[in-house]
Amino acid sequence: MSWKIRSSNLNLDNLLIEESLFFTGNGYLGVRGNFEEGYKQVSKTIRGTYINAFYDIVEIPYAEKHHGFPDTQQKLLNIIDSQTIEIAIVHDGIEEWFSLFQNSGEVISYERVLHLDKGFSERIIHWRSPSGKEVKLNFKRLASFTRLEQFIQEIIIEPVNYKGKVKIRSTVNGDVSNFIDLSDPRVASGHAKRLNVTETRMEQEIVAVEVKTLASNLKAACAVTYDISSQAKIEHKKNEKEIESIFCFDLKRATTFTKRSIYTDTLRHGQDPIMRAIELQNHQSFQEALHEQAKYLSDFWHHADVQIEGDLKLQEGIRFNLYHLLQSTGRDHHSNIAAKGLSGEGYEGHYFWDTEIFMVPVFLLTKPELAKQLLLYRYSILDTAKLRAKEMGHQKGALFPWRTISGSECSSYHPSGTAQYHISADIAYSYIQYYFATHDEEFLTNYGAELLMETARLWTEVGHYDHGFFKIDMVTGPDEYTCLVNNNYYTNVMAKHNLTFAAKAYWYLKDHAPKQYVHLQQKMGISDEETLEWENAARDMYLPYNEEYGINPQDDSFLQKAVWDFEHTREDQYPLLLHYHPLTLYRYQVCKQADTVLAHFLLEDEQNLEVMKRSFDYYEKITTHDSSLSSCIFSIMACKCGYYEKAYHYFIETARLDLDNTHGNTKDGLHMANMGGAWMAIVFGFAGLRIKETGISFQPSIPEKWETYSFPIQFDDSLVQVTIKKDRISFNLEEGDFLAIKVYEADYLLRKNQTTEILLRK
Amino acid sequence: MSWKIRSSNLNLDNLLIEESLFFTGNGYLGVRGNFEEGYKQVSKTIRGTYINAFYDIVEIPYAEKHHGFPDTQQKLLNIIDSQTIEIAIVHDGIEEWFSLFQNSGEVISYERVLHLDKGFSERIIHWRSPSGKEVKLNFKRLASFTRLEQFIQEIIIEPVNYKGKVKIRSTVNGDVSNFIDLSDPRVASGHAKRLNVTETRMEQEIVAVEVKTLASNLKAACAVTYDISSQAKIEHKKNEKEIESIFCFDLKRATTFTKRSIYTDTLRHGQDPIMRAIELQNHQSFQEALHEQAKYLSDFWHHADVQIEGDLKLQEGIRFNLYHLLQSTGRDHHSNIAAKGLSGEGYEGHYFWDTEIFMVPVFLLTKPELAKQLLLYRYSILDTAKLRAKEMGHQKGALFPWRTISGSECSSYHPSGTAQYHISADIAYSYIQYYFATHDEEFLTNYGAELLMETARLWTEVGHYDHGFFKIDMVTGPDEYTCLVNNNYYTNVMAKHNLTFAAKAYWYLKDHAPKQYVHLQQKMGISDEETLEWENAARDMYLPYNEEYGINPQDDSFLQKAVWDFEHTREDQYPLLLHYHPLTLYRYQVCKQADTVLAHFLLEDEQNLEVMKRSFDYYEKITTHDSSLSSCIFSIMACKCGYYEKAYHYFIETARLDLDNTHGNTKDGLHMANMGGAWMAIVFGFAGLRIKETGISFQPSIPEKWETYSFPIQFDDSLVQVTIKKDRISFNLEEGDFLAIKVYEADYLLRKNQTTEILLRK
Repeated sequence: MSWKIRSSNLNLDNLLIEESLFFTGNGYLGVRGNFEEGYKQVSKTIRGTYINAFYDIVEIPYAEKHHGFPDTQQKLLNIIDSQTIEIAIVHDGIEEWFSLFQNSGEVISYERVLHLDKGFSERIIHWRSPSGKEVKLNFKRLASFTRLEQFIQEIIIEPVNYKGKVKIRSTVNGDVSNFIDLSDPRVASGHAKRLNVTETRMEQEIVAVEVKTLASNLKAACAVTYDISSQAKIEHKKNEKEIESIFCFDLKRATTFTKRSIYTDTLRHGQDPIMRAIELQNHQSFQEALHEQAKYLSDFWHHADVQIEGDLKLQEGIRFNLYHLLQSTGRDHHSNIAAKGLSGEGYEGHYFWDTEIFMVPVFLLTKPELAKQLLLYRYSILDTAKLRAKEMGHQKGALFPWRTISGSECSSYHPSGTAQYHISADIAYSYIQYYFATHDEEFLTNYGAELLMETARLWTEVGHYDHGFFKIDMVTGPDEYTCLVNNNYYTNVMAKHNLTFAAKAYWYLKDHAPKQYVHLQQKMGISDEETLEWENAARDMYLPYNEEYGINPQDDSFLQKAVWDFEHTREDQYPLLLHYHPLTLYRYQVCKQADTVLAHFLLEDEQNLEVMKRSFDYYEKITTHDSSLSSCIFSIMACKCGYYEKAYHYFIETARLDLDNTHGNTKDGLHMANMGGAWMAIVFGFAGLRIKETGISFQPSIPEKWETYSFPIQFDDSLVQVTIKKDRISFNLEEGDFLAIKVYEADYLLRKNQTTEILLRK
Repeated sequence: MSWKIRSSNLNLDNLLIEESLFFTGNGYLGVRGNFEEGYKQVSKTIRGTYINAFYDIVEIPYAEKHHGFPDTQQKLLNIIDSQTIEIAIVHDGIEEWFSLFQNSGEVISYERVLHLDKGFSERIIHWRSPSGKEVKLNFKRLASFTRLEQFIQEIIIEPVNYKGKVKIRSTVNGDVSNFIDLSDPRVASGHAKRLNVTETRMEQEIVAVEVKTLASNLKAACAVTYDISSQAKIEHKKNEKEIESIFCFDLKRATTFTKRSIYTDTLRHGQDPIMRAIELQNHQSFQEALHEQAKYLSDFWHHADVQIEGDLKLQEGIRFNLYHLLQSTGRDHHSNIAAKGLSGEGYEGHYFWDTEIFMVPVFLLTKPELAKQLLLYRYSILDTAKLRAKEMGHQKGALFPWRTISGSECSSYHPSGTAQYHISADIAYSYIQYYFATHDEEFLTNYGAELLMETARLWTEVGHYDHGFFKIDMVTGPDEYTCLVNNNYYTNVMAKHNLTFAAKAYWYLKDHAPKQYVHLQQKMGISDEETLEWENAARDMYLPYNEEYGINPQDDSFLQKAVWDFEHTREDQYPLLLHYHPLTLYRYQVCKQADTVLAHFLLEDEQNLEVMKRSFDYYEKITTHDSSLSSCIFSIMACKCGYYEKAYHYFIETARLDLDNTHGNTKDGLHMANMGGAWMAIVFGFAGLRIKETGISFQPSIPEKWETYSFPIQFDDSLVQVTIKKDRISFNLEEGDFLAIKVYEADYLLRKNQTTEILLRK
């Protein structure tokens, strides 16, 4: 049940959105759900194929440029298009080209399906040509999870009332551009054409195209092979930018046409990507590819599937989200998860803090090896982050970029970009969570400790003592409607956590990893004295608290500002950022998203529940959730506060955000952080799971509308199936011998293949 | 004495600087001090001719554009070049072209002189050609103060050891561009070529060129006539972009060559500027032009000349400054004083708050009719300021642009641009000062009251009540190293002043100008109730005061921040803005310029002297004076505090800033605000003059190095000559029957042609 996302919608307004919803990817490749035969004559289309982290460098324009503003940024490129396959019925000297639009005959039936369990998408069509010839067409496509370079398409053409000549025109086209939308600041506004075709090649049955970026000097290639199950006349035509392959055959019975595209690039495949793509070509059939794919996904769902009984829509939503997260997650140290994954070009394919706070947790507790990859990516840009700290006037430490692909800061508007220093603490937080969940000491020794200490240094650089407290001025917290403030609660508490665990990592190294300790002592000049500074700064960290309201103010001056006039703000003035100048927004108590409330979730032991509840109540009234990173956190914290109905309401907002296009910009790509957030709302929210230094704990509850829900959790070597019913939570330890857990603060020891049940508190 | 600025410097590094220092202008036209014959083969040159406010509209590029960011800005254009005149000695079939460089013979003597008393500049040259032919050349040029469209040049060629053929090549060239320097953010970085030539015309002895901007659709024209005192063969050649005129004659005796250029534009001269320029042509000789010019200047200096006995360098500096201010001040409601005047292209010819706070005072007390013009310009853009307030989310009021030519906001970096809301209060301040000094009730009724009330409305829009105080959040004060703060002392106190006098203007209108009162009631919807709101906001205005230090903090959080590490900042790291990211600067107690100290000068009655002294002491330690708007204010306030030696030191910094190129960027134009500031340092600083509602007052002192200094002051109908000697101040009322003044708080009544002397306090 609910493993298939279906659509029979051919409404032109919907096509762009479904290009994102039905995209196929594998963390390396992403191909938007465009139609093979296209429809650009009738509708806007963002025809896109992306390699994660394959970017060009473009200049950032400024009318007034200040010191330290980045000169250039990276931009994810739309690369070689190998999606295109056109089909014509040829009779009486006429070619009737298949299309679902343009008065091209009649669509007798149409459905597209995304198979979340098997990992492919398909279109099932019964079409009658203008002259009345009918065929059934079945398009399938997948980006292989097991062969990351491979995108494979299959078309089965079945005669209905027509047997006769059919022509297939398939292309591999290097003459591509990125999408431009001058009216929306969240989409890139220039630099569309960034690739030159360096080679088109035909080698035996392989056709291949290679492209090179204008500035970054990266190359990518695509090599394609074909199979066709009927005897066909085949002709390949090559020009400077494209290779066209024509297949002519007699359609007598159902005929299967297969197109295998192998993508490579110079980041991963050496300096001759076209050669490497050709080498990687193979004779796998679509069925074989599908078999591998299904096996991979079976394992994934075994570790990740969240089941909800009692709500099919939500069941569909949560699986859809997890599936697309899996499709978008980088598998190597060059890549990460872009804000829109590999589903579109929004935010230019950049990586944000979204990864660490909204997406790493999902993989950490389901597929920790993927979480580790994401962490390794950050380690790989640590040197660039150290350089950036210097550029920003700090003597030492690492300042991670607000948005980036290859590591350098790509944010041109610092108040809600570079000023979000918290990203460095967020990354540190994810390293600490990774350690809590895996106790991977090797990783801590080789990567984690260094990153924790370099980020800790940033805080002693940027902060200072004032009246006995350690304070951090002029930064921006998560809430982008309040910028450049002093002592943002979120930033300070996350910095405190970072400093604390950097010190712990230091002492750990000194005691347990003398070789790495000496290495880092030489590399970084760490010392007991500096570690003491970190401990002191953590101890003395100023965490703003307001006596009058009994809450943590978002920053020093937040509560002094006027409250936004919500009463006189019309529905069509949201999201506010599209209707008000930043200065106006900054001047009021109005939040785009969870800020202090997020801090209360991530580090709940820093405040007592009453403060968190009052804070929740206060911020809820002034938060617009104009960011897709907000509702999931409010859902989690509503659970924490015992506001279960609210929690459910917020969860609904997150679970189907893209499926229902509630933010109106799904066309530019899926909202990856929100997708992770939906999972978090279930696992951290309803089930109340937390990962702390002391272990794993639960504070379970269940929404009224649900009968039961369940999910697996990977923790250390254990795999636990967690099931929550109306009255109880049960744990089944599928892997691992023992696992100590806490439920409602009480300790339990789970044993292999044994079910432990605990009654829910009402 | 000291009426001439001289230079014999032909050092290539110096040429660019002298192009600014020796520019000739009249408030409408500005022509840089380029050489007629040019030197672009040997040195960088910014060859420029400008019409005040003649701009094109260019797009502002953003990588991340937010709501309310301006899409376009205006840019002052370099227009038709009519400076160029080349001279050759022709003998034996060879043309020896005159140049001061390039191995073109020998410069036997060279001097250039700017005549501050007569209003022209000249070059006096004795030149020997490569073949040994010697001539004396005298180039003179002026931009007429009495015929604003006219720029006139004269060259006298005098034979020394050569009599024979001479050829003059003179051009009028519409094929011009603006200057680009990609390495300096303070200079424009693109959009160099913004003009097309629409016509070149020859009509009898007049040659003329017309150009049109690419986007603003403004046209400018230049019509030129020539005289030559020897019989010459004259030939005009016209192409699509330029007209070249060749004069060949026998040099037997000293020959005078005159070139009259008349500039017109569609902002002032109707839709056919080329026709209008031709009509305005005349037969004035250079001598006649000079005569008019000297007469005009004689009157100006009678009203403005500051005389310092005992320091020739400073005498030169102060006259130089006043002269260039006069040359740069717009004479109509289209124009104002650009940050660089008409001397260069720095800051793209934009008008800032510099005008009201640093330049209007000079004219207000010397040539009030010019001050009035500057105020009328602001009134002319009041409607645009009202639109901008709406755009920024306010319901009503006027928000003046941080930088502009034609009225719309041209600032693309809001933290130190649009956020400087104080500009609206600064403009109001200058209107109030104008009234105090002139009691011009007609102006108040027709212009002042409306502007005061529209700006007052801004403050009730942007401010709000908090714990009984009226507060203003998220603005930037004058100090650009501290941005986006709450309750900037300067902004709040200036807003208070604005609100107070808007209310007074309201009651004045109601009582004395019923017609205009009704008109504004209908136009603006003003009421007693709203006026009461202004009075309340003024009364309750929060003016931050810190008990611990006994000073006014620059803003709510200023004193909590860490103090900048001046000890470890190297000399070559100043100005800090060129070496540190804005965020880094914002995080520390470090000031680019006077902020609270400036507020203490402008509204000294808001604090007692002790608070102002302690504040001066505090801010002095952390102010870098990286802005050229700073030292003059510190000089004035040092006098106020009795720190006379310091005052003198700061004054020195201002008086010769451009003459000595101490900020290193005089090449891009003169620092107009500083030039006004130097005058202010004498009149408001040493002489301690203040203009208040209660009248004019003095708190005189004299720097130790000076014997005596004196200056005239226009106040209402009175012209007073003020002279300060070692031991006394004396007043001589040259015009007007009586004038009541205060000296050291005591009242005096000056009478016509009578000298009043008061002993200085030590």
